[in-house]
Amino acid sequence: MPELTIKKIGILTGGGDCPGLNAVIRAAVKTAIIQYGWKVIGIEDGFEGLLLDGKTRPLLFDNVKGILARGGTILGSSNRGNPFEYKFKEGGKVIVEDRSPLLMDKLRALEIDALVVIGGDGTLSIADRLFKMGVPLVGVPKTIDNDLASTDVTFGFDTAVNTATEAIDKIRTTGESHHRVMIVEVMGRYTGWIALQAGVASGADIILIPEIPFKIEKICEVINERVKTGRNATIVVVAEGAKPEGGDMAVKMVVEESHDPIRLGGIGDMLADKISREIHLETRVTVLGHIQRGGVPSAFDRTLATRLGVAAVDVLAAGGSGRMVCLRATHIDSVTLEDAVKQLKKVPPDGEVVKSAQSIGVSFGK
Amino acid sequence: MPELTIKKIGILTGGGDCPGLNAVIRAAVKTAIIQYGWKVIGIEDGFEGLLLDGKTRPLLFDNVKGILARGGTILGSSNRGNPFEYKFKEGGKVIVEDRSPLLMDKLRALEIDALVVIGGDGTLSIADRLFKMGVPLVGVPKTIDNDLASTDVTFGFDTAVNTATEAIDKIRTTGESHHRVMIVEVMGRYTGWIALQAGVASGADIILIPEIPFKIEKICEVINERVKTGRNATIVVVAEGAKPEGGDMAVKMVVEESHDPIRLGGIGDMLADKISREIHLETRVTVLGHIQRGGVPSAFDRTLATRLGVAAVDVLAAGGSGRMVCLRATHIDSVTLEDAVKQLKKVPPDGEVVKSAQSIGVSFGK
Amino acid sequence: MPELTIKKIGILTGGGDCPGLNAVIRAAVKTAIIQYGWKVIGIEDGFEGLLLDGKTRPLLFDNVKGILARGGTILGSSNRGNPFEYKFKEGGKVIVEDRSPLLMDKLRALEIDALVVIGGDGTLSIADRLFKMGVPLVGVPKTIDNDLASTDVTFGFDTAVNTATEAIDKIRTTGESHHRVMIVEVMGRYTGWIALQAGVASGADIILIPEIPFKIEKICEVINERVKTGRNATIVVVAEGAKPEGGDMAVKMVVEESHDPIRLGGIGDMLADKISREIHLETRVTVLGHIQRGGVPSAFDRTLATRLGVAAVDVLAAGGSGRMVCLRATHIDSVTLEDAVKQLKKVPPDGEVVKSAQSIGVSFGK
Amino acid sequence: MPELTIKKIGILTGGGDCPGLNAVIRAAVKTAIIQYGWKVIGIEDGFEGLLLDGKTRPLLFDNVKGILARGGTILGSSNRGNPFEYKFKEGGKVIVEDRSPLLMDKLRALEIDALVVIGGDGTLSIADRLFKMGVPLVGVPKTIDNDLASTDVTFGFDTAVNTATEAIDKIRTTGESHHRVMIVEVMGRYTGWIALQAGVASGADIILIPEIPFKIEKICEVINERVKTGRNATIVVVAEGAKPEGGDMAVKMVVEESHDPIRLGGIGDMLADKISREIHLETRVTVLGHIQRGGVPSAFDRTLATRLGVAAVDVLAAGGSGRMVCLRATHIDSVTLEDAVKQLKKVPPDGEVVKSAQSIGVSFGK
Repeated sequence: MPELTIKKIGILTGGGDCPGLNAVIRAAVKTAIIQYGWKVIGIEDGFEGLLLDGKTRPLLFDNVKGILARGGTILGSSNRGNPFEYKFKEGGKVIVEDRSPLLMDKLRALEIDALVVIGGDGTLSIADRLFKMGVPLVGVPKTIDNDLASTDVTFGFDTAVNTATEAIDKIRTTGESHHRVMIVEVMGRYTGWIALQAGVASGADIILIPEIPFKIEKICEVINERVKTGRNATIVVVAEGAKPEGGDMAVKMVVEESHDPIRLGGIGDMLADKISREIHLETRVTVLGHIQRGGVPSAFDRTLATRLGVAAVDVLAAGGSGRMVCLRATHIDSVTLEDAVKQLKKVPPDGEVVKSAQSIGVSFGK
Repeated sequence: MPELTIKKIGILTGGGDCPGLNAVIRAAVKTAIIQYGWKVIGIEDGFEGLLLDGKTRPLLFDNVKGILARGGTILGSSNRGNPFEYKFKEGGKVIVEDRSPLLMDKLRALEIDALVVIGGDGTLSIADRLFKMGVPLVGVPKTIDNDLASTDVTFGFDTAVNTATEAIDKIRTTGESHHRVMIVEVMGRYTGWIALQAGVASGADIILIPEIPFKIEKICEVINERVKTGRNATIVVVAEGAKPEGGDMAVKMVVEESHDPIRLGGIGDMLADKISREIHLETRVTVLGHIQRGGVPSAFDRTLATRLGVAAVDVLAAGGSGRMVCLRATHIDSVTLEDAVKQLKKVPPDGEVVKSAQSIGVSFGK
Repeated sequence: MPELTIKKIGILTGGGDCPGLNAVIRAAVKTAIIQYGWKVIGIEDGFEGLLLDGKTRPLLFDNVKGILARGGTILGSSNRGNPFEYKFKEGGKVIVEDRSPLLMDKLRALEIDALVVIGGDGTLSIADRLFKMGVPLVGVPKTIDNDLASTDVTFGFDTAVNTATEAIDKIRTTGESHHRVMIVEVMGRYTGWIALQAGVASGADIILIPEIPFKIEKICEVINERVKTGRNATIVVVAEGAKPEGGDMAVKMVVEESHDPIRLGGIGDMLADKISREIHLETRVTVLGHIQRGGVPSAFDRTLATRLGVAAVDVLAAGGSGRMVCLRATHIDSVTLEDAVKQLKKVPPDGEVVKSAQSIGVSFGK
Repeated sequence: MPELTIKKIGILTGGGDCPGLNAVIRAAVKTAIIQYGWKVIGIEDGFEGLLLDGKTRPLLFDNVKGILARGGTILGSSNRGNPFEYKFKEGGKVIVEDRSPLLMDKLRALEIDALVVIGGDGTLSIADRLFKMGVPLVGVPKTIDNDLASTDVTFGFDTAVNTATEAIDKIRTTGESHHRVMIVEVMGRYTGWIALQAGVASGADIILIPEIPFKIEKICEVINERVKTGRNATIVVVAEGAKPEGGDMAVKMVVEESHDPIRLGGIGDMLADKISREIHLETRVTVLGHIQRGGVPSAFDRTLATRLGVAAVDVLAAGGSGRMVCLRATHIDSVTLEDAVKQLKKVPPDGEVVKSAQSIGVSFGK
């Protein structure tokens, strides 16, 4: 690789919200300025900000002061802005266009020598394509779901699990007072990490995850068995992407008036519907939703995010590109973006954590 | 009133879960034992426990150790157990029966001289009828909704508001990162106290409460105005019982497969549905649900609950009955149960708190 | 009073840090702008900022965005800046000077028509003197100690009590694991409100406050009695200003090397020293210190602070001056500053809260 | 190793309090009963409970219900009970005696086939000696200090770091309001893990740890430099075991009256004393103390503790002994106790975390 002399870098955040984004931004900005004397440009609303005028601004020390412990991202994010498949409306139709050439022009015009791209699977895949087109860049993995295979853990996950666990702690006391089945739906469309960790941490009785299809009869059996032995409250933690064996419960929920589907259900609601027909306890559902994505990051996430932000800039400074920084056991490392986005990290159904949960009596509904 | 010599009291909790119930139980038990040398019987699952065998147990010091900070109630609760209209199934039919005579027999058999009844509107109304039938008792007000007219504030409310506020704090950061309208549905079927206080405390932009019917057009107008002035995130806090002017949005939500209504919607979902058609921002709903009822009570609620528990026993000891203990400004007082349950305390639409919110730019959707 | 036409107000915060200060500032600024179209000047570091050049700045909407939930004060505070007795060093000597004439000049030069003064006893006394010299102003009471007689409760107190209670909750588990006497020193130099409320809320066994002088022998007796009955852990919550009967334990602590006193002890340390000689349990002290003054304000404090901030501006707009806004039961009111600062609100030693605590077995060491 | 047929195991906790102990106990008890059908004996107050009569009790399902999220240990702990050097007083003298033979007798009498020993360095060293005398046992590492070399992280550490970070968050706002140097002393007598992680997580400006001796002049230089550039608040996080270069600040603090040392200072107090002489800002110290050891364990710690508790029993069941279970990256493993207790894990002064902190401008005082 020809020696790259960096004078100015851009930084952007893409994808869903995640506690720790601001900590990465702060660390990257500080390191770039203090260690390397670079200028830093903040790009607003993900890659989209590069395509639109006026959506970039210099980031100085003062801009990152006091943001370490703040949830969200001071740069804004966007799920829409894939520059390779940019969508917009024209004459009532949605048009999809490759705007990567424009993006390359903008980078040149802004004299941005390299990028720090903070995002999940989708954002990092875009980054990899840009890297292959010649843009020097380093990715920082971000997902509360913890489903990236190339890093032991992602920042945001610890906070999300703490938030979910504290919520389940609260719900438990009500379940016990009223002898109810309390179903708590947590995030995790494709993987069950949050459900598994928060379930174990909160002492859930039943944990349902996408990786282990469940049987509704088994769940009812477990609950009835608990009732027989005097344990009248049952806590069920279910990932939003959990599915019954051989099928799909994602029945559409509609509003009677309009018959438009207003949201795809609602695995929690579905479960409650089915369970409450089979057993004699009251059943209640709580969908934790967006509280899992926001808020003050945990100490672990702040520290991890800080270390990754520093490392991303260090990798760029050392001439690295097309890589994603990551955590391996206790140290920071990096891998190629290509390897990083190849596959999701799923919960191994026979892994140690699932087995540990089973050893203490947790059912996975199968 | 003829002098009542109390040797043994019963204590029970009724109605929905509420942080601080255990603190009341602990305080009442300790005071009864330490100050008056009484025995205390814990009655399980509300009044229902008095009707069933084996649902009472002595409460000693050790039984209330370590429960001060625990959510829920160690005695269990029940919404069903109105002894005057006791419901049960027989031969496939639901039968309603007045079982108050049985209840009186049980009290005599257990040699319970007086009751401490901890509950909301419903439970305290039952208590008042029992009092009028001759049962010496004192009520302790309990509702997270803060809607009892005869007390300045009820325990549980402060915790519920803190929980809701912390959740909205988390949701706000995501709203700001993604330029979204974030709708948060909080508890409050008939009154908007939680929505109002948590809304003001969390800096909500729009607060919708049952006492102030809203116009959907006004809400959209406020949001669009915000967008125009560069404020792309809007936080809407809505009480579950909020209603549009002159109408009702409580459309049934159904599951396509079964066409059984699985829950009455979902004012939050309805709002999101309507708002997202009128404005160009993404809209997301979070229904906080049962997390507002559980968890570790706040310091204020623990102290208030403790003071009320002590006071209830003191009132009994002083020969009082048919009364509810309550908070007046900074001191504990009592009122007749009859007065206490006469009416709900609603948020005054022109009251100082609503006006304060309006003064700083909060819209109530009208 | 001649009609005052306000166009511009100044706002300042004085005295010790207190959660909710920013919420008052935000509410006052928003109300002044939205309701009355006034300009607002932020004065930095208390009254001192008025005396120094360059320590004032305009406060607009954007300046108060996002500060509702932040501890501290964006305006800074100062304990030193009494303009009537302004201290400074000159030629090695400390000189005290009345700079109120300069302050009046500055107010005129800045065209500030009225002031909102947020502070405790000291700051509000200064405000009262300025009012009597002709400065239109309204005070907002601020103290985590809750010791102002003219308001039912001050903002900041609820947060401080929650922080103390949560800390004692943590310390309790360790005390129980190790069979120790855990002494927790909380704030409260002249009054015991924090110790009393946090003590009751956390289930303390012994609470020591300035208003009830304690006997060390009594404390040891209580602890020994607990040990005899199998309760090996004892939680002692002590206000920093608690004192033994007829004496004073404020022995100086010195550093051997220098023999300079580095702090006045340390009632907690003193107690530990004395108790550990008399009983056979290990004793540990934790001084909570400044964590009680900072952090995210509780929902209650944010709402109360907001209401007071609005009310202060409303009082000014209605032509009021020389008054302090305050909370009476559930509504906001105002009193003259003169009345407000006349005396401290002390814990009544025979009041209901102390008696409630005694009823459940808490000892006050006498 | 001859095949060991286990029918009954004992479990004990030793050393300082640590969040997660109860989660280990719960997991071990449940696994032993559910997976292996063993009986479990709880031994109170560490090894000492084995030496005294009446300090053991059976642990059944009901005994571990509801303890997952509780700080402390239901079994109690003891720092004193080294059976190889058992100390007791007789005739005014302290006698040290090897009571391991008695301990072996007791194990036989109780028919305990194997032990699960939860403890830190000290407790596990004792366990290793007992193992070498023939007692089948497995150790579970416990220390909030995270200083055990054979495991990536210990449970309790995450909670302690969160507690410290939240406390520093609170203290920061006060520091900024008052332009102060805020010194926060955290735990860590021999290693700086808590100070380092909590310091980075809370955005500390200066972090002082035992592994990097500091220069007081350097610290003052950093603070003065900050003041010059307009940053008037400085957060210093100092581990209790931090030391100045080439010396020791552990000057004794004494009480003037008695001249008995009441505690070894107080690195925080010492620092404040020295700093406040050299700079012109107010300096305040907070010693976090025991709040770091207690409280509700974080989700991470509950999960890790659960996994370790299961693993300890699994290792015993598989015929393992003399081993300590541990965390390696994301999976649970085990090592010999001998290796495990060989050395402390210190913060590498040139490691990646320290360097990351330096990259964003944190000073370590050298």
